[in-house]
Amino acid sequence: MDERLLELEEQIFELIEHRRFVQLKEVLSEMQPADIAEIFEEAKDKEIPVLFRILPKELAAEVFVEFDSDKQEILVNSFSDMELRQVLDELFMDDAAAIVDEMPATVAKRILKNTDANTRRMINQLLAYPDDSAGSIMTTEYIDLKRNMTVDDALDRIRKIGFDTETIYTCYVIGSRRTLFGTISLRDLLLNSKDAIIGDLMDENIVSAHTLDDKEEVAAMFDRYDMLAIPVVDNEGRLVGIVTVDDAIDVIQEEASEDIEKMAAILPSEKTYLKTGVFETFKSRIPWLLLLMISATFTGAIISSFEAKLAQCIALVAFIPMLMGTGGNSGSQTSVSVIRAISLGDIEFRDMMRVIWKELRVSLIVGVVLGIINFIKLYLVDYLWLKTFDTGAEFGEMLTICLTLVLIVIVAKSLGAVLPMVAKKCGLDPAVMASPLVTTILDAVSLLIYFGIAAVLVL
Amino acid sequence: MDERLLELEEQIFELIEHRRFVQLKEVLSEMQPADIAEIFEEAKDKEIPVLFRILPKELAAEVFVEFDSDKQEILVNSFSDMELRQVLDELFMDDAAAIVDEMPATVAKRILKNTDANTRRMINQLLAYPDDSAGSIMTTEYIDLKRNMTVDDALDRIRKIGFDTETIYTCYVIGSRRTLFGTISLRDLLLNSKDAIIGDLMDENIVSAHTLDDKEEVAAMFDRYDMLAIPVVDNEGRLVGIVTVDDAIDVIQEEASEDIEKMAAILPSEKTYLKTGVFETFKSRIPWLLLLMISATFTGAIISSFEAKLAQCIALVAFIPMLMGTGGNSGSQTSVSVIRAISLGDIEFRDMMRVIWKELRVSLIVGVVLGIINFIKLYLVDYLWLKTFDTGAEFGEMLTICLTLVLIVIVAKSLGAVLPMVAKKCGLDPAVMASPLVTTILDAVSLLIYFGIAAVLVL
Repeated sequence: MDERLLELEEQIFELIEHRRFVQLKEVLSEMQPADIAEIFEEAKDKEIPVLFRILPKELAAEVFVEFDSDKQEILVNSFSDMELRQVLDELFMDDAAAIVDEMPATVAKRILKNTDANTRRMINQLLAYPDDSAGSIMTTEYIDLKRNMTVDDALDRIRKIGFDTETIYTCYVIGSRRTLFGTISLRDLLLNSKDAIIGDLMDENIVSAHTLDDKEEVAAMFDRYDMLAIPVVDNEGRLVGIVTVDDAIDVIQEEASEDIEKMAAILPSEKTYLKTGVFETFKSRIPWLLLLMISATFTGAIISSFEAKLAQCIALVAFIPMLMGTGGNSGSQTSVSVIRAISLGDIEFRDMMRVIWKELRVSLIVGVVLGIINFIKLYLVDYLWLKTFDTGAEFGEMLTICLTLVLIVIVAKSLGAVLPMVAKKCGLDPAVMASPLVTTILDAVSLLIYFGIAAVLVL
Repeated sequence: MDERLLELEEQIFELIEHRRFVQLKEVLSEMQPADIAEIFEEAKDKEIPVLFRILPKELAAEVFVEFDSDKQEILVNSFSDMELRQVLDELFMDDAAAIVDEMPATVAKRILKNTDANTRRMINQLLAYPDDSAGSIMTTEYIDLKRNMTVDDALDRIRKIGFDTETIYTCYVIGSRRTLFGTISLRDLLLNSKDAIIGDLMDENIVSAHTLDDKEEVAAMFDRYDMLAIPVVDNEGRLVGIVTVDDAIDVIQEEASEDIEKMAAILPSEKTYLKTGVFETFKSRIPWLLLLMISATFTGAIISSFEAKLAQCIALVAFIPMLMGTGGNSGSQTSVSVIRAISLGDIEFRDMMRVIWKELRVSLIVGVVLGIINFIKLYLVDYLWLKTFDTGAEFGEMLTICLTLVLIVIVAKSLGAVLPMVAKKCGLDPAVMASPLVTTILDAVSLLIYFGIAAVLVL
């Protein structure tokens, strides 16, 4: 919350405390729904229905949409059927469906009971689409036009039905069975003569999504084509809804959060940080930690099996963390770059060879530079000054460490490049191939390389 | 590229090969600028100007904007002054400024020479804003209205100047010195009577940005308030430009990429993965790797200083990777969650105590669960089966490992929560406090805890 909002919050809670509701209504009417929702969420649960009733009808519905589902449930339970109907009347279809989706069954039932038959049918239809599909984020209210209309007819139609549609800025030209023929922007309508024919003006080169397309791909289309709304069609090419840019932004943010969480070995959750309970947070974090802890057994086993030899050149043990750390960091640099590039659509499976070739060259330079600098550091700090190494094996040990470093970086970056692309090809989420899993694999590989080289040069 | 686009690409390159330009023009005219740019980028450098000249004028400019700066430079250098002026005429001011910004000085000069005085002044003004500011992503072309206009006057004005503005869907009501009084959407204009007065209809509760606001914050406003454009004002409250939603989406994607890169110890770059050269990639990756490699010296030094004691209970060495790995993963789970929540505006510095309290409880549960499961695994696998432990010290060693595990998780999650918030408070980027740096610190802390407990229980 910024300064301005904090001041408003203070003012509002003062007005609430002194029960000055007329003034409160004035202040609230001037505010943005998201801001009101944020401030109301700080209020006590039993105060929220009181505060909510102060809001003008349309604003009330907008604020309702901004609440999280807990608060929405409290509100719905406090509403009379009449009040509930009023709020529902103002909602867009996609928001209504999302709310029904998140409510407990009894509350959802009551909501559906208080909508008219047509809305109920629409909501049920939207809820039937899979969670990650374009269908699940579309709305069914849009401006539809016919090819034989004039611009003037179209503007009349917009004036007639525009109050109930989420956007009027892109209109959809459809045929008798709702087949989508073209789109036309309100801009084109306004900037053309009033008796031009829609069929001549419309853009027939339609960018559209299918109801079952992944919502992430649909969101990416907004980014690529700079659109305000994208029509969604079914198998027969019939227009069934539109996705608007505000929902696309939500999807983009969600997907980025999800990728980031997966990269950090967290199971993604849809709630915001502070609203996720302690136990929920625990549940999203423990699975990967457990898996990674167990799989670290392999690294342990590798060390154990070299135990007898290690006791002879114990100095090498001190460099295990540095080597494993550098391997892990090099690998995750690459895997994270590749994962992000995949999710932005910059690289695809067919670019595999280019990616590997690039990473090989990068890792060679990185490895050699790190190796040389490390050798200088080992020589000056550990050999001359601290005398860390085992007498007689000094140069063998230093060489072992530096050679291992170079090899580890090359292996790490190659694996980091290949694993996410293979995962994507196999239909898995590339983001799972990021740091933690790759690091654990690399830890074991690093140790094998280290002890292998040591066996030749030192032992 | 999807199937459809791959087919188109094949078709287009066939038409190019057979020099069937009339047909090529037909195909291209039906395509989206982003798709054309992607396909053209596969063409040979010397073919691009030829292909570009086939495009209709307006589409040509749209495709030009989609190219990366290398290709834009090739094109500008191939243009006659006349051609250059034609393309520039079609560009929006923000795109023109971005292009000039990315060109080498001589090319930029030639571009500016070929724009009229007014455009030149605008471009120079836009270029003067800092790189990350709202000013740097805004455009200066918008619909401005006066308070005393009627709806009909307003629609006339939109019809007159709407061809040159990036959006006509939000209009800005300004006073004599361009002071911003309010906004009105085209929707409100269309849905109200033709002789209503703008001053009565306009929304005076303006969501606006300041020219010097961070562009990331401006992008977040689009997400929060579901807007299509946000007005940008200067110190005197005068309207100087608008930011449109398509540019906000670009910023959101860029910022997410930047955060992800920082979390993976990569210096952020603006180019896409495949377009970044090997040496550039090297430069963005080596600094953190070097720093982290050098700082791993501390972990090494800690191990070295316990060397003599370690030789007595060498079994403990095998568990160092598992402990450090679990510590690192626990820490980065928390730091990444906190960093993302900060950048989405879900938590702020004043939530510090709530965050720490939450992480303490989570880490206690996570730590104890991991500790117990690990004990069972140690007992069954390492003690009974593999007989890993040093004779006589078995239970002391097992207890040491499990206690360390619990403590490390708690320390890791607390540090992971505190560091990003403190960084943010100090004006640093919280994302730098993610995995790699936190992990390196945790590595050292983990070892100290491990050897400390071992000293009490085993040695």
